[in-house]
Order: sequence, then C-alpha cells, then structure tokens
Amino acid sequence: MAKKVAAKKPQKKASAKSAANAKNKKYTYLFGVKTDGDAKMRNLLGGKGANLAEMARIGLPVPPGFTITTEVCTYFYENGKKYPSCLDAQVKAGVQSVEKQMGKIFGDEKDPLLFSVRSGARESMPGMMDTILNLGLNDKTVEGLAAKTQNPRFAWDCYRRFIQMYGDVVMGVQARNEADVEPFHHVMEGLKSEVGARLDTDLTVDALKELVKRYKALIKQRAGKSFPQDVYEQLWGAIGAVFGSWMNERAILYRQKYNIPASWGTAVNVQTMVFGNKGETSATGVAFTRDPANGENQFYGEYLINAQGEDVVAGVRTPHKIAELSKEMPKAFKELLAIRKKLENHFKDMQDFEFTIEENKLYMLQTRNGKRTGMAAVRIAVEMNKERFMDEKTAVQKIPADSISSLLVPVFDPAAVKKAKVVAKGLAAGPGAASGEVVFTAAQAELVASRGRKSILCREETSPEDLRGMIAAEGILTSRGGVSSHAALVARQMGKVCICGASDIVMDYQKRLMTVGDYIVKEGDYISIDGTTGEIFLGEIGTAPSEVIRVLSGKMKPAKSYTYRLFETVMKWADKYRKLGIRTNADTPEQAKRAVQFGAEGIGLCRTEHMFFEGDRIDAVREMILASDLNEREKALKKLLPYQRKDFEGIFKAMEGLPVTIRLLDPPLHEFLPHESAARNALAEKMNLPPEILAERCKALEEQNPMLGHRGCRLGNSFPEITKMQARAIFEAAASLIKKGKKVKVEIMVPLVGFVQELKFQAATIGEVCEQVMKEKKVRIDYMLGTMIEVPRGALTADEIAEVAQFFSFGTNDLTQTGLGMSRDDAGSFLGRYKELDILPKNPFASIDVNGVGQLVRIGAEKGRSVRKDLKLGICGEHGGDPDSITFFNDVGLNYVSCSPPRVPVARLAAAQAALKAEAAKKSKK
Amino acid sequence: MAKKVAAKKPQKKASAKSAANAKNKKYTYLFGVKTDGDAKMRNLLGGKGANLAEMARIGLPVPPGFTITTEVCTYFYENGKKYPSCLDAQVKAGVQSVEKQMGKIFGDEKDPLLFSVRSGARESMPGMMDTILNLGLNDKTVEGLAAKTQNPRFAWDCYRRFIQMYGDVVMGVQARNEADVEPFHHVMEGLKSEVGARLDTDLTVDALKELVKRYKALIKQRAGKSFPQDVYEQLWGAIGAVFGSWMNERAILYRQKYNIPASWGTAVNVQTMVFGNKGETSATGVAFTRDPANGENQFYGEYLINAQGEDVVAGVRTPHKIAELSKEMPKAFKELLAIRKKLENHFKDMQDFEFTIEENKLYMLQTRNGKRTGMAAVRIAVEMNKERFMDEKTAVQKIPADSISSLLVPVFDPAAVKKAKVVAKGLAAGPGAASGEVVFTAAQAELVASRGRKSILCREETSPEDLRGMIAAEGILTSRGGVSSHAALVARQMGKVCICGASDIVMDYQKRLMTVGDYIVKEGDYISIDGTTGEIFLGEIGTAPSEVIRVLSGKMKPAKSYTYRLFETVMKWADKYRKLGIRTNADTPEQAKRAVQFGAEGIGLCRTEHMFFEGDRIDAVREMILASDLNEREKALKKLLPYQRKDFEGIFKAMEGLPVTIRLLDPPLHEFLPHESAARNALAEKMNLPPEILAERCKALEEQNPMLGHRGCRLGNSFPEITKMQARAIFEAAASLIKKGKKVKVEIMVPLVGFVQELKFQAATIGEVCEQVMKEKKVRIDYMLGTMIEVPRGALTADEIAEVAQFFSFGTNDLTQTGLGMSRDDAGSFLGRYKELDILPKNPFASIDVNGVGQLVRIGAEKGRSVRKDLKLGICGEHGGDPDSITFFNDVGLNYVSCSPPRVPVARLAAAQAALKAEAAKKSKK
Repeated sequence: MAKKVAAKKPQKKASAKSAANAKNKKYTYLFGVKTDGDAKMRNLLGGKGANLAEMARIGLPVPPGFTITTEVCTYFYENGKKYPSCLDAQVKAGVQSVEKQMGKIFGDEKDPLLFSVRSGARESMPGMMDTILNLGLNDKTVEGLAAKTQNPRFAWDCYRRFIQMYGDVVMGVQARNEADVEPFHHVMEGLKSEVGARLDTDLTVDALKELVKRYKALIKQRAGKSFPQDVYEQLWGAIGAVFGSWMNERAILYRQKYNIPASWGTAVNVQTMVFGNKGETSATGVAFTRDPANGENQFYGEYLINAQGEDVVAGVRTPHKIAELSKEMPKAFKELLAIRKKLENHFKDMQDFEFTIEENKLYMLQTRNGKRTGMAAVRIAVEMNKERFMDEKTAVQKIPADSISSLLVPVFDPAAVKKAKVVAKGLAAGPGAASGEVVFTAAQAELVASRGRKSILCREETSPEDLRGMIAAEGILTSRGGVSSHAALVARQMGKVCICGASDIVMDYQKRLMTVGDYIVKEGDYISIDGTTGEIFLGEIGTAPSEVIRVLSGKMKPAKSYTYRLFETVMKWADKYRKLGIRTNADTPEQAKRAVQFGAEGIGLCRTEHMFFEGDRIDAVREMILASDLNEREKALKKLLPYQRKDFEGIFKAMEGLPVTIRLLDPPLHEFLPHESAARNALAEKMNLPPEILAERCKALEEQNPMLGHRGCRLGNSFPEITKMQARAIFEAAASLIKKGKKVKVEIMVPLVGFVQELKFQAATIGEVCEQVMKEKKVRIDYMLGTMIEVPRGALTADEIAEVAQFFSFGTNDLTQTGLGMSRDDAGSFLGRYKELDILPKNPFASIDVNGVGQLVRIGAEKGRSVRKDLKLGICGEHGGDPDSITFFNDVGLNYVSCSPPRVPVARLAAAQAALKAEAAKKSKK
Repeated sequence: MAKKVAAKKPQKKASAKSAANAKNKKYTYLFGVKTDGDAKMRNLLGGKGANLAEMARIGLPVPPGFTITTEVCTYFYENGKKYPSCLDAQVKAGVQSVEKQMGKIFGDEKDPLLFSVRSGARESMPGMMDTILNLGLNDKTVEGLAAKTQNPRFAWDCYRRFIQMYGDVVMGVQARNEADVEPFHHVMEGLKSEVGARLDTDLTVDALKELVKRYKALIKQRAGKSFPQDVYEQLWGAIGAVFGSWMNERAILYRQKYNIPASWGTAVNVQTMVFGNKGETSATGVAFTRDPANGENQFYGEYLINAQGEDVVAGVRTPHKIAELSKEMPKAFKELLAIRKKLENHFKDMQDFEFTIEENKLYMLQTRNGKRTGMAAVRIAVEMNKERFMDEKTAVQKIPADSISSLLVPVFDPAAVKKAKVVAKGLAAGPGAASGEVVFTAAQAELVASRGRKSILCREETSPEDLRGMIAAEGILTSRGGVSSHAALVARQMGKVCICGASDIVMDYQKRLMTVGDYIVKEGDYISIDGTTGEIFLGEIGTAPSEVIRVLSGKMKPAKSYTYRLFETVMKWADKYRKLGIRTNADTPEQAKRAVQFGAEGIGLCRTEHMFFEGDRIDAVREMILASDLNEREKALKKLLPYQRKDFEGIFKAMEGLPVTIRLLDPPLHEFLPHESAARNALAEKMNLPPEILAERCKALEEQNPMLGHRGCRLGNSFPEITKMQARAIFEAAASLIKKGKKVKVEIMVPLVGFVQELKFQAATIGEVCEQVMKEKKVRIDYMLGTMIEVPRGALTADEIAEVAQFFSFGTNDLTQTGLGMSRDDAGSFLGRYKELDILPKNPFASIDVNGVGQLVRIGAEKGRSVRKDLKLGICGEHGGDPDSITFFNDVGLNYVSCSPPRVPVARLAAAQAALKAEAAKKSKK
C-alpha cells in the first residue's frame, strides 16, 4: 500500500517544471554515525532535524535516523497529498543506512529495529502535530523484542502503546464527539476492571496480550480495516499522518497565533527508538541549560524513571526535579552536566533538550534554543553578554522585542496580597499576576472573554484542545504536570500567567467546581494566581505595578531591583543602536508622563476627541454637533474651549518641551451622540428641543460607512469654527506656558487629508487663529503644521501635500482599511479563514502589510521628501508598537514611530533590532 | 475712493514674486478702432472680451472699449480683494483711448461718454454675474445727455435705470429677505400711483427727476452713503461689483453644476454704451446663426424695438421673431444677414450674438459659439461638415459627447398623446417629453425630487434664483419670455425639457395654482409637456422611445428618420476614430440586446447578484445566506443553480458570441436579507426556524462598514461552494449553447481581489468546476479568468495578480471609495462644500479623480502589463460612460470601457474625441 501511494504520479496540477525538479531532489537527510545535515539547514530539515544532525556532528549521543524534508510537505499539499515519486526509494535507503549503523533490521522477527516518527517544523510547535513511537512492532517482532530484551512485559506494553497511538493518529479511531469516551481508554479500563488491575502497570503479560487483541478488534471494527502488520506500511502510514497533522485544526490555530506561514511545512524525523521505560535503570527527561522562567543561570529540568518521553511533556505523572537525578543516576547526571556546557558553548544560547536513559546509557533526542519568558530572555541575553557568549549586538537581537513588556506587567498589590489567603501552591510556570473568574473549559473562557470579563482557566492538565481557552483566559492553573508541561510551555510563550501542578487542587469538571483543601471554588468564583511565586488566592486581588515601573516612578531604588537593572541595560543598548525616534500616542497628562518614563521622545498622536468624553463636556460636544446653524454651533464650541485649553496645558506641561503632535477632531460626529433613547430624551430636554427633532438630527448624521464618511479634516473644512476652537485652545495653552518661561513644541496635525487643498484651508484657518492669539497674548508661538497620511490618495499625492505639510504621520490603521478595502471592525468574519488559507499570513491591523500598505507608505515618504527634504515622517497607527512593522518603518527611513505608552520600551528595542538587521543586510550585500 | 482701493499695496499674503510680476503686467486690452486682443485669448480676456476683440478685427461694428483680464480677478481673490497696483493707471489709459476713438469724454458735462460694465468668464455663465449699464451719468452729465440727444425723457430714464442698477448691484440696496419688496421697485410703484402712471413709460421727465431724487434718498438711507457723482468712483465701484459677483452664491452653484473651476476668474468689459431704447429707430436683439433647438440651418432670433439688451434676455416683454425685422428695419436686417454669414465663415461654428440698433445704426455687442441642444449639436456638426465648414475630425469634436443622449430620450407615447388634451401651447425651448407634479417654487421642486418624485417647475419667468429648482425638476414651463430667455438657455444646456412663453397660462403663486384657460391646475397636479412641440397636456402621459430607438429596434425605417441618419453618421465617425472598445454593463438579456443595438461590443460587467432578487429565487438566496453549515448552504445553492444557469443562457444568447464578463457574487450578504420584521418572520416560517434565531443570524451579518466588509471574493473564499455553484451555472449555460453550435465567449471576473492568493484559490475552484462540466457535458469550454481591480492593494500589486489574471477590469466606483477613503453614500454631506471650496472641482464618483484614483489605474495597468503583455484592460465603474473619464482611460491605454446601455453611444463618441485629442497632443509635441 505504501508503495502504491508513493508511486502515484504527480497530479496534473503540478507544473512540468516542479515535477522534473522533484525527480532529482534529495528529500531525505541522515543523522547519526553518518550525518548529511547541520543546524543551518533548519528551513529544509525543520528545527528538530537540523539540530539532531548538529548534535551528531559535535559528537553527542544521538540515536541514528533520517529526516524527510519540509519540501516534501509542501509538495504533498500542492499535489493533492501525493509524494514526489523518488521519495519511496530515498526512505528505503534511509532505513537501510540506519539498519547498518544499528546492526538491526527493520521488521526483523528476532531483533527488530524500531522507529519513532515525529514532526519537526522550522519553528517549534509543541504538541501541535502527531507523533508515533515504537513503530516496527507487529505480532511477530513483538516476540523478538520480548526475547531479545528478556522482558515480555516491556515488549507487549510497547506493542499495545504503539497500536493505540497508531490506531488513534493514523487510522482515526478516536472519540466521535466530546461526550464520547476515548475508545482505547475505554477498552483498557474494561479489561483492567475484568482482571482487577488498578494501574496500567498492574496488567500482566497475558492481560497485555489480551489488550492487544481487543485493540486490534476495535480498530478493525471502527476503521473498517486491520491494523497493518507490514512494517513499511506502518512507516508510510505514520509519515502520512505527520504530514497530515500539519493541517489539523489546532496546528492551524497555533500558526495563526504565532504568524507561522502554512507554506513552511513540517519535516518528518524517523529515528531509532530508545527506551526510557526499560525499568529502573532507564529514564527520560527534559532540561533547560538555564531557568526558562526567570533566566537564572542554573541547570533546570525534570525527569521520570521508567517512562517514555511523552509522559513528561503530557504532564500525566508529575516528574522529579533534575537535581535529584544526581542521586538516582549520578553517572548520567554528570554526563548531562557536561552536555549542558557543551550545548551552550556550541549553540551560544540557552538550550532546551530532551534525553532518554536506556539501561544507564544516555541518548540525546532533541535540542533547540529554549523558549523562555520575556523576563528570562532579558536576563539570559544580558548575562550571556557578560559571560561573553554573545556580543552586545547579538544580545540585543536575541531578546524578542515583545518580551520586554513582561518586565512591565503588573504584579499583585503587595498590601492586598498580605491580607489575602493563600489556599494552595503550585509550580511557578508563567510569571505575572492575574485575577479572574474560574472557568473549567476553553469554551467557557472564550464566552467570559467575549463578555469583556477576565477568567482563569483551571484544568487538571491542558492539551492543544485547550488552546483557544488559553488565549482567552488571563491565566492558567493546572493541578498536574510540571514546568515543561504543555500548559507551562504555551503559557510562557503567550506571556500568560501560569501555575502548574498545584496537586492540592481537585477538579470536578462534571460539577463545575474544584476543591482546594477545605474550600470549594465554583465556576464563576474569583481567584487570583501569582505565576511568579506559584501562589493561589481566593477572590480578586488588585494588581500593582511591576518593579520596573516602581523604579521608574521613583517608588523603588534601582539598586534594589535586579530586574530594573536588566531593563536599563537592554534599553541602553537599544538606544545605542536604534535609528528611529520613539514617540507615544497619549491623550492625557498621566499617559504622557508614563510614556516619558518609558523613554518616549515626544507625543506622536494626541487625539483631541478622546478628551470630549470626559465629565460634563460631552453635553457641550453634543450641542455642538446637533447645532442647526453656525450661531448655535459657535455657542457650544465656546463652552468647549476652556476644557480643551486645560487639556492641552496639562499635556504640554507633562511633556516639558518635548514635541507634542495634536490631531484635530477626527471621528464621525455621530460617534459622540447618545444611542439609547433615554439618554437622547435627556439630551433633548437639556437642549430644549423636542425629542423627535433631536432624533431626526441624530438620524441625519448616521452613515452607511462611517469609516469613509464625514470625518477627519472634512469636518474642519465643513465647520471651520471647530478647527478655530481647537486651534485657539492649543495656542492659548501654549501661550500660557510660554509666558511662564516653559518650553512648548506644538505640532498640529490635520487628519485624513487626501487633497492638498483640504490642508491648505485648514492651514489658513489655523494660521489666522495663531496670529490672533499671538496678538492677544503678546507672545510668539512657533508651531509645525502637518497631516496624517491615512487614505491612499494622500500617499499618492504626497508631493503636492508636502508643499504645505511640514510633517507627515502615517495613519496606518486607516491606511490599511482603505488600502485593502477592509474594515477592521468587520474583517473578523473572514480573517481567520484568510489566515488558514495563507492569503493573509498575518493580521494586517497588527503587523503592517508590507507589500500593499507598505508600498503606500514608501510612495508617500518618497514623494513627500522629493519636494521637502526635511519633511519629518512618522507613524502613529497601532503598527508603531509592532516589531515587524518597526523593521519596515526603519527600512523606509521614517524619523520616528509612535505607539501606546506600554509599548514604548518594546518599540525602542525593536527599533534597535531593525537598525542592526538593516546594517547586517547592507554588509551582506557588499 | 477708487484710487485708494487701487493704490493699496498688495497684501502680505501675496508672495514677493507675484507682486513683482503684477507690477509689470498688461492687465487691460483695448477693442474697437485699436484692438489688442483676439479670439484666441479667451482664457485671459474671457469669452466676451476675446470675441469683441475678434469682431473688431474682422471689421464688424463694435462699440469701442477695453477688457480687464481674468488675471485681475484671480489676483483680487488671492490678495484679500485688492487690485494690482498698476491697474489704476491702465484703466485710466483704457478710458482715455476710448475717449479718443469716440471723441467724447467720460464725465463730460456736455456730451458724456457712457459705459457698460459687464462680466465675461472663459465659459459663458448667462445671468450669473452682475452688469452695470449707463455708467458715467450723474446730476450734471444727465443734463448734457439730455441736451445732446434732445431727449430729456431718454436721458432721465437712463439715469434712473443706472442709479437703480448701481444701487442694487454695487451699493447693495436690495430686498432684505424673500418677503421683502424690491426697494427700488417699491419706490417706483409708489410714485407711479401718486402720479397716476400705469406703465413705466407713462412717467414724465419731471416724474423721472423726482424718481431719481427718491432713489438717491433711498440709497443714502439704506446704504449709509450717497450715490457717487464721481464717474471714476462709479467705474471702480462697478468693476469691484463684477469681480465680486464671481463669488456670489448662484455663480458658485452654476460652476458646481458645470464643473467650472473658481480659479478661472472672470474678466470685466468696459464698453461704450449704445442705446436700443432711443425710440422707434432703435432696437436690441439676440440671434443665432442657426436654430439652437433643433440645429436647422435658418436664421433664428428675436428683438425688441426701443429697448435695452437686458429686456430681451430677462424675458419681461415677449420679443418678436427675427424674421419680422425684415419688415420693420429692412436695412438693419440685411446687414444682420450679412453678419450672420460672415460670423459663420469666420468662426466656423454656429454663433449666438447680441446686437443693438441705435437710431438705425447697427452695433455688435457680443458673439459666441451658440449653446445648443444635443439634437442641434449633432445636426449642426453633421451639416457643417457637409457644408465644409468643418472636417470630420472637427465635427466629431464639436458635439459634446453627452448630447448624443438627447437623441435617445423618450418622447410621449404617441397613442397616449392622441388621447390627451392639449390645454395650452408655448414656445418649444428644450426638446423631449416630461411629466410631473406641478410645482411653483424651486424649493418645492427640490422637495419633490428629494422624495423621488418628478416635477414640472412652472414660473412666469425664471431667474438665476430658480437654478436649484430647474436642476431638480424634470421640465420647465414659463408663461412669459422667449426662446432665448433665461429659462430656455439654462434648460437647453441642462438637457431639460422646456416650454417658454405659454402666455395663456396665468400663475398664482400665492394660491399655488395656475389657470390654463378654463382649467385650474394646482400644485401637486400632474401635467405633461412636450418641449419639442411646445404642447402642454393635463395629467401624466406615458413616454415612448425616441426615433433612434424605434429605428434601432426595427420599428421604424431609417429612411423615415432624419434624426436617426444624423445619429448614424456621428456613430460612424466615432467608430472610425476611436481606439477604445465599448462594452456595456448589463444584467439581463433585454439590457444586453439594447446595448448591442447601441453598438456595445460585449458585456464588460454582468452582475450576477442582480439576478438574485427576481421572483422566488430571493428565498433560496436567503436560505443560502442564513445556512448554519455547509450542508444547509449547499442545499440552498442547489435551488439557485437552475435559475442562474437560465440567466446566463439568456445573456449568452443575446450577445451572440460577443464577450461576456460575468462577475461572481460581490455585495455583502446582508444586503439580501429582509429588513422588515414581517418579512423576517415570513422567512423564518419558510425556513422552519424560530424568528429569534433568524433575527440573530441576520444581526450577526450586520457590519460597521459593509463597503469594506465581508464581500467580493472574500465570500467566494469563505464559502467556495458559492463560487462552485456560480461557475457551474456559467459553464453549464455555455455548454448548452455550444452544443447547439452557438458561439459563447465567457470571461469570469473575480471581484475585490487585493491579494493574488485570493484569485488563485478562486481560479482553482473555477477550474475544477470547468473540468467537471466539460467531462459531464462532453464539450470543450474556453474561458478567460480575470479580476476587478477595485481596492488600492489590487492596483499596487497588479504585477503579482496579473500572473494569474488574464484580464483586469478597473472597478473605479470602489477604487474611488477606497482610494479617497470616501463613501459614495455618505459623501453628500460634504461634497457640496468641497466643490464650493474648489477642493474637489468635480464629483469624483461621476468623473474620475485623475490625480489620485487615476494614478492607481495607471499603476495597475503598467504593473499588470509588465508581467503579461496581452493583459486585457477595461473599466466598468460608472466612469465608463463619462466623457472626461473616457479621455483619461484612452490615455492610459485601456482596451475598453464598459457603461450602462444608454451611455454606449455617448461612450463611443467620447472615445473618438479622446483619441483625436491624444492625436492632436502628440502632434503638438512634435
């Protein structure tokens, strides 16, 4: 059967060219005694395959095997799930090479060679794809294994595990729906109760033989065909299942979350099996060369005696800390310490590796750069720089820019924590503090989130099926599993707060509650968890700023916080290498101050309308909007003037002479109107208008596509009196500070300009008001006038607009909406599907669409500078805080990016990384 | 005072450069014995000024004067309503030159030189701006004039008219609001009743003197200053008023309607007064060298004995037909016939001219290319070509492309007309047939139009104040005034149906009714008017197709219709010169057939969703949309398949092998849903769903900005089953025709593509279905696959998209919406203001924004062709039928434009004009 599949000709769809290429290509790479690949071949061999090859190269004990490349995966999906015709022969050759190295034969009835078959993508996707272990066992080879190992129990246990895995993964014998029991589990439990066994390990060889019989019957019944006895058929089945799992739902979801393109594909690693479950001299474990949670330079990991690798990761048994291995298996532990050193020396980074000890012999099954918390990333980079593992530039690039934000996440309010009761403790697996409603299912977590509330997802252990819930929840709490369990790995990568293995807690999904010692916590009750200490509290606890923030706001001394010093080091590095200026989007003095503490060099976007909702002023705003004529409108605007003036004074003061870009009124006016009829009636009374008239005026302001409607400078041009009021508020605020001897750097930004004339009229109005205020206040006020480039026409006619504008700020939110013809509010209905199909590998509202929207930014920048060399260019969309987008903005040569205050440190680091990347690219070109 | 104004230094705002330029510039041009200008200087001197100069050059009797250039107007508005400093001296020199030619002195108390001061823009704007006559009269010169003419009554009548005009126009003594009486009229009527005069002409010299006294008192009282006695002050006041009137409300409105940029400005013509009101040997008139209503080659016009020019145009007295002049003033008439010939020989086009006969001496006051109906434009061009006044290319360019549509406008259903009662007759002033509610005011016409109903605006006479109403109404009916009255001129230009001078009708605005003989017609009653015959009918009459359409559809023989033969000639010319292909947007076989009759060479846009609303099928559409899963959706789609197949069969059949571009489903799905709750409940019952579930599903489909939402190929990619159904319907329809031996040219168009991947997926789906259908039906089906370029990203990545697309059709409607960030449905709230401010000189949804959206089209075309040389390029937005846009599309090098069926002939002609323009531009470059 395997041959048949492999031999099938490439489908019609495949072009003649790709078919020809496919014929001559090398699709399998050996590792072991003979090694074809190395660590650099990650894209082709996947992370696991490349590093297995590399470990073999540097002499680490790797069980031999071969890697089927990611190109096969791509071919597989481009050609209707068929393989290149030459693959069959190459796989066969790979098996034969391993047979030679091991001195064993695949399918040999006396001493069978067994394989594991595992996925391995370019980027690690833990637990997302399928794995098959013990492959090569059948009714005959199992006897050979039993005889050779003199351990029939072990052999039959391996066989029943293999059938179970293969039946599930390859032959699709699975629970039919959520209510259904996992069928193999059901069969096993039935047998266990028949023979009176409590644990799996209580099953005798005969019982295991019976179990194998029943498993095979189950498969025959449910899958309609027999479990295959031909070992090559087993192998091809497993390979197909692994490639198939690249497109399973959870893998797709994972790729969506981490922006991994579907086109990368996965490799498949076929590797000689080694056994950590051959009794008390065998073990299996996972270790990190440093602590992945806090970055501390100490050996970190866990292991299980007499277990297979999946047992550790799955979190079914709670493993031991790695240090204990020094007592249980001192020789192996010593070897591991040496390997830890060798790995860091070789890979120059913290490694996360898997090992198995088979009858006292140590095998390395995998190594990779270890995932780590933001905190750990920072600490490891700073300390590895001190230890000369990496130079400053490398260290800067080693810290995912986003991870800086984890140093800034709030912790529990220390005062509140003192009063709160710790009801249980678990393993600190994802730092930070989180409070929320207890939920027990992913679905409930999503529901709670959709209602704008916070939740803590509580599970015995998590599995990839819980992914959606983990995304939706604030924090994750498990009662089983260790710091390298699924829950812990995923939570850390997401930056979620996580506590694992809180074994005092008993979950009762059925009753939707958990017991914590004497306490019963029901779904919907609040709990709080501290992922840094592992403590679990009843009730909701207020959060407090992180150490970094406490130091920045003068509430803690720098010397007292190692975290702060790490932060400071990284920020210093960032500022040393970055070219881009970093500004912030801030609408209040408080936000402005925080941003300056974070290193903002100015305000890139102050949205004046955000001030309109505060307190009573919304009434005046509404009167202004609903005015029936100029006279009424001017009356309402007069009421607003003092508010706005005060707003701007506060912001100018907070910024202490740093530039402040103020955007004039932007949103469609009806956004300010009351939508409930009660509120409308109250407003009507206040305005002394019949409610039906008010309703009519509100109705008249409704729009089909408000995003493309009467907003931005269209308002200021229709109602110059609004611009006048805002300009007056700005200039009067500036005047009052200047008179007090303070510095003020005013930049006025006219939104949504598509035609230079729009800007000209606004510029004239603003200029007039400035002249008036200067005359009235007898003070000189300098200001810059610019515009947001946020509709394609603005970018396309930037040369005309730059004749008037002294600066541009690219409003990439709206530029994305108009450039792609895609409303951010509505795109949810198809963006998921588009990511799945790889049409849009990233959410274009989170990370700029370089090929499309990016062209508009580039055109705008080039045309603008073609007529005004010193045109200041910035960007103030949400992309301003996104590292990938920042790379692009650096390449385009903008002067600055502007982002929300908490993203400022991230942007600083990302800007440095962008500059270094550009420098490297330049060098490599030369 | 005049000097003070003129001497003022240019304002700060004017750049140093423009001020310097202004110093040395020639701002006044003489005409008369000495003539500086000519007809080519239209942009500088305005149409009137340039042609006065030209007439003087070719020896026609023009009263001497000078023109102040349009550049002064531009300067005036750019410099805070100040004049260039050197203008004062130049005007003085102009006056002196005229004084010399006339042998009279301006302000001379014995024999004063008098002037008229008139506006004159590049394009004629009849009645929009201010005019002053008899300027130069004051308390002293009036006596000189009286003595010199030996006609004190004439002199004092001139003086009181001058004061009245000057007081109104220059000094602003006007009715304060609509209810107020015109104040000079009020004073005159008072005096008339005091002295018992019935008509103005009954006033004696003494009465006129008294009137002058009272007028001056009125001015003093209302304007706060005296009527100026200094003739230069009078002159500068008049010049300022004319320039000022460039920006009056009705001029702005007029420019909006006709897309005349405010930046053009008007010139001012200062010309020696001649008098048509010096008794029975004097007259004044307006004439056309050919009939401007139907184009017939016969002298056409009207005159009034003993009247000033404004009397004819204003329509206050109903003038005589020009032919009668041959009896009343045979010598002058003979001269006019000679001038008629000379004018056509010289200007090579139909002329519209004004003349005055002062004591038997003929003077020419103006000539210009005559405005004409579409019908006349066609006939004149065709006949002037036959007469060798113009060659074919010139003739093609002489016909405004839009005017072709007036040959296609419906006429009354002949059967219905026979039965209808003609209640009155007027002058046929604007051809075509119109039915509607009677309205008496512009405001009411606008109101009725806003409610989607039709109206006939009925007025004694119209004035520029009625412009808005004339735009809103279907037709115009006046009881006074001739075929060159304001109503007639404006109606013809607008292509409105118009009957003038229906003197049997008596309007009673107060009671909102009119009496027509024995009938009383009230506001809101229906009438029907035939602007080709002048007949007025009670009630509503159905309309019938025009002669051209009757011939095209075989209901009339070509030989029987001269109109058709004109149409045919022009279309032949058009097809000879045009480069662009012309297709049509058609969704039904009927539309398709009509378009082919009109010369369409294919369908450029067949909107499949338009078929979804017919009959029962909307239910299936709704089921499809509201399906909760694939299964339900496929069931509904199955019901739709036969409908769609039949639709396409019909269209393919109608097009007889011409290419048919079918666009796949495009609009957001909720557009198809019932919005009323009753309809929803009915649907819920049909679908066997609880109403609240249905309501919920409808709600879930609502979008914030549907324009940018889940639509276009986003639907087909989310629900490939929809694309499959549509593709199947198309291919099955094609197969059935091919089997019958018919030719079918299928082009499938995927809408809203921004990412090439979107198209790839759709292409694969369509390709699969085609293979299936070909296999099932055992027939070969060829088709082209293309996309609409309608979001900026599509244009910007056209090189990627053209790798898959075989053709592009620019969807310039949506490309305008996204490119400008402007929703067509919502832009109404600010587009008016934007036109006023000249930010957007034209409505970008009617005529393409060349600088912005045009760039996207150009980029898309160039990038697309860079990877696929034979990429077929078309455009199917509404711009496809707009002549200016067609010029642009011709320049970009598109293959075809596609427009609605009735616009096809217009597009053919416009395409020829575009090609000729491009040819001329190319030549002039060489």
